[in-house]
Amino acid sequence: MNAVTELAALLPAGTVLTDPDVTAAYARDQTFLVPGTPLCAVKARSRDDVVTTLRWATEHRVPVVPRGAGTGLAGGATAVDGCVMLSLAGMTAIRELSPADEIAVVEPGVINADLDRAARRHGLMYAPDPSSHEISTIGGNLATNAGGLRCVKYGVTRDSTLGLEVVLADGRVLATGRRTMKGVTGYDLTGLFVGSEGTLGVITAATLRLRRAPAAPPVTLAAEFPSPRAAGDAVAAIIAAGCRPVLLELMDRNTLRAIDDWKHIGLDPGVQAMLIAQAEAGPGGDAARMARLCEDAGASFVAVSTTPEEAEELIGLRRLAYPAKERLGACLVEDVCVPRSALPDMITAIEETAARHATMICTVAHAGDGNLHPVFVFDRGLAEPPPNVWAAADEVFRAALDAGGTLTGEHGVGLLKRRWLELETGPLAGELQRGIKQVFDPLGIMNPGKAI
Amino acid sequence: MNAVTELAALLPAGTVLTDPDVTAAYARDQTFLVPGTPLCAVKARSRDDVVTTLRWATEHRVPVVPRGAGTGLAGGATAVDGCVMLSLAGMTAIRELSPADEIAVVEPGVINADLDRAARRHGLMYAPDPSSHEISTIGGNLATNAGGLRCVKYGVTRDSTLGLEVVLADGRVLATGRRTMKGVTGYDLTGLFVGSEGTLGVITAATLRLRRAPAAPPVTLAAEFPSPRAAGDAVAAIIAAGCRPVLLELMDRNTLRAIDDWKHIGLDPGVQAMLIAQAEAGPGGDAARMARLCEDAGASFVAVSTTPEEAEELIGLRRLAYPAKERLGACLVEDVCVPRSALPDMITAIEETAARHATMICTVAHAGDGNLHPVFVFDRGLAEPPPNVWAAADEVFRAALDAGGTLTGEHGVGLLKRRWLELETGPLAGELQRGIKQVFDPLGIMNPGKAI
Ligand SMILES: Cc1cc2nc3c(=O)[nH]c(=O)nc-3n(C[C@H](O)[C@H](O)[C@H](O)COP(=O)(O)OP(=O)(O)OC[C@H]3O[C@@H](n4cnc5c(N)ncnc54)[C@H](O)[C@@H]3O)c2cc1C
Ligand SMILES: Cc1cc2nc3c(=O)[nH]c(=O)nc-3n(C[C@H](O)[C@H](O)[C@H](O)COP(=O)(O)OP(=O)(O)OC[C@H]3O[C@@H](n4cnc5c(N)ncnc54)[C@H](O)[C@@H]3O)c2cc1C
Repeated sequence: MNAVTELAALLPAGTVLTDPDVTAAYARDQTFLVPGTPLCAVKARSRDDVVTTLRWATEHRVPVVPRGAGTGLAGGATAVDGCVMLSLAGMTAIRELSPADEIAVVEPGVINADLDRAARRHGLMYAPDPSSHEISTIGGNLATNAGGLRCVKYGVTRDSTLGLEVVLADGRVLATGRRTMKGVTGYDLTGLFVGSEGTLGVITAATLRLRRAPAAPPVTLAAEFPSPRAAGDAVAAIIAAGCRPVLLELMDRNTLRAIDDWKHIGLDPGVQAMLIAQAEAGPGGDAARMARLCEDAGASFVAVSTTPEEAEELIGLRRLAYPAKERLGACLVEDVCVPRSALPDMITAIEETAARHATMICTVAHAGDGNLHPVFVFDRGLAEPPPNVWAAADEVFRAALDAGGTLTGEHGVGLLKRRWLELETGPLAGELQRGIKQVFDPLGIMNPGKAI
Repeated sequence: MNAVTELAALLPAGTVLTDPDVTAAYARDQTFLVPGTPLCAVKARSRDDVVTTLRWATEHRVPVVPRGAGTGLAGGATAVDGCVMLSLAGMTAIRELSPADEIAVVEPGVINADLDRAARRHGLMYAPDPSSHEISTIGGNLATNAGGLRCVKYGVTRDSTLGLEVVLADGRVLATGRRTMKGVTGYDLTGLFVGSEGTLGVITAATLRLRRAPAAPPVTLAAEFPSPRAAGDAVAAIIAAGCRPVLLELMDRNTLRAIDDWKHIGLDPGVQAMLIAQAEAGPGGDAARMARLCEDAGASFVAVSTTPEEAEELIGLRRLAYPAKERLGACLVEDVCVPRSALPDMITAIEETAARHATMICTVAHAGDGNLHPVFVFDRGLAEPPPNVWAAADEVFRAALDAGGTLTGEHGVGLLKRRWLELETGPLAGELQRGIKQVFDPLGIMNPGKAI
């Protein structure tokens, strides 16, 4: 009996998939990276399935690549040759939702937006909302410490995570953290797993913090600017004035043009950047103040929603950004984050880089956090980004680091950014991280070659 | 030349203290624990002093106990025999304060309230505010992941920490984290150091997040209740209604009586508990709503401040809680945290325990977080808590764990709670934490015997 047959016999029928056409579908995420060939895929339905798979993997020294929905943008869920693709997408139970304690206990395959909808039925919400909230899983969000539009106000996934259940490489089950809002017993293992991209263990449950949902839907505003710098100045002014936007997004000229080419939004030729912001409705809401600050910073046009439908329409523009770019070609989506004050300079640096390397870069930014997504568009016919795109990306990474920033605000390191990692963290951090990896996964079978 | 003389020669004059009367003053924190005898104390003035000390300690295998202000309540800064007490209290520079990026870079000896005051000059604040904010250091706050009164709204120290500079046991200098609001490059080493109680390395600088200070001082309310349960119900109602208190504190009958005996506040005999809450002023503020919810939950009396002076007076009551108890005898200050919904039951459990073991327990709680500080008062003549106090404390810990809670919400494990630690975390977490410790401090010289 070969190893895979043995695994299939240990797991419920239909759990292990070996048809190469099927396993190939599990072998990659949203990046262009060409995956290795998996031995098989496992569709886990329970924690026991995960335990069985990992015990078996340890025994046979088989690498394991955990996978949520495969929407990752860093190559974290890319197969390596001879691995098991361990899909958690089928573990979709919301085990508990406590309005009194404002927490939920969920399995890793729950789709982000499904949890949010379940919470809203109790007047609560799940705050972290990556743009992929309708398609990505909580497990993937945790493993990448996903950010989102609302995180300018509510923080990233880590800030909503209280405790985890994790299956270690050898199949032992670890509980980390707690159900309480605070706690300091021992080292923060919860925080260590969040953002670890499946390299330390498999998350099989999470205790998450919910928050009260605002009583009324937010007010949305859109402001058009004659230059990205003016938009950056408006962002700085909004934060300095103490406004508390729920969301504060910036789109550059190339992004707006891509949307206009597709949806004909009547983009004025003079518009070089747009800000989309949301504020809580009602007294204490900041929409009018933010609109004024945009005008002061030189906005040529500001629209403020007066109905939820208008709000949806304005925010809908932002949602078009990714699909509009994908129409232009293959995309390398980057994710640098800089101190907020460096945002205008960073936008300029990206524009100059694009010109210097004759590359098309469309940028959107979670501007309130200084987190920019320069999207490098290249010929769809190519298997991977051509040299000029890599050269441009390299320049953008270095510019972000020079500005006191980071390579990745929310997408993670995965495979894609590993070669730049120590530029940011230095060799000592690398050595310590490898030491930590060794503690949790001495055989190195958990998602090898990723994240660190 | 003996080892200490050698160290003294390596460091600036006056840095190494060896007079036993002087070193004894560095050897303990605010607990009753009897410390060991240090070899010497080092008053570090710079990162270089710390590097020199740790290199020397590694060479000579001398244990190092970092110390901030020694206000700890878990015995974390308690000397072990033959150790160096490494005081960071003299490193008090605020290296940078950037209003645009809302961050500060500070040395570890900065007093918490001094940073807050520096931030306020720019319309900002440093949110985490342990009751010891006027006397404890940022380094100690980081090493214990300190909470505070405002953390019901703004989170604990971890939530305001972006990056650290740490000197490892062997003297190497590690930079963790970043200056940006978000980032996911590699494992979260910053989070690992926060709360690690000096067992992984010495924090020599921190990049901290500041926040906009509210434009107006908060409105304060005080509500008196005929039972702790009624006060607990009011807390639940306030949270469920979506109010966003800046602070939500509970004091039990024994605490109130201790304050009344001292300051004669005219406590009504029927009052069994008091809530002190703060809400932001102005539209969107919740003071009136919270007052109504207190009345609905059975409050016999509710006072709402109308001037900043009145607000100070009401919040001043809460500040009297610790000193008032210290007048009664020696204190074992505990720190359990439970899911918010378990707060009323936990208060009842503490009262029953007090009666069963004939112990005096005064409880204050950061009620909005479910974090209770039962203070066990015992005879000042005793060197340590008598058996009935330990038995009562043991019962309280187990009740908190049974309620899904934790041994320590914010003070840390230190020496004091180590024997209960694995009750909460289990043996596997213990094993992993020892593995992590080994990566950072293979010789085991950093604050041995604490935290894990
Ligand atoms: C249109 C679009 C918009 C996006 N917008 C955002 C955004 O706004 N913010 C943002 O942060 N990201 C965004 N992303 C990226 C992506 O959606 C996130 O990284 C998301 O968290 C990945 O979730 P997933 O379930 O698809 O995980 P996958 O892609 O399947 O896996 C991601 C990583 O997590 C690991 N993993 C998955 N599940 C587990 C588990 N249970 N235990 C351990 N490891 C696990 C994998 O091994 C891999 O390393 C976007 C992607 C797309 C396509
Ligand atoms: C009246 C009073 C009220 C209090 N209220 C609160 C409260 O509301 N919330 C709360 O959380 N705590 C509270 N505490 C406890 C205490 O103030 C906190 O734990 C505080 O964070 C300790 O700071 P410190 O500078 O005194 O540290 P110390 O007591 O000197 O040390 C505490 C721990 O940190 C380590 N350490 C100190 N500096 C460093 C460094 N630079 N690098 C590495 N390790 C270091 C020490 O080794 C030790 O383990 C209170 C204490 C008192 C006396």
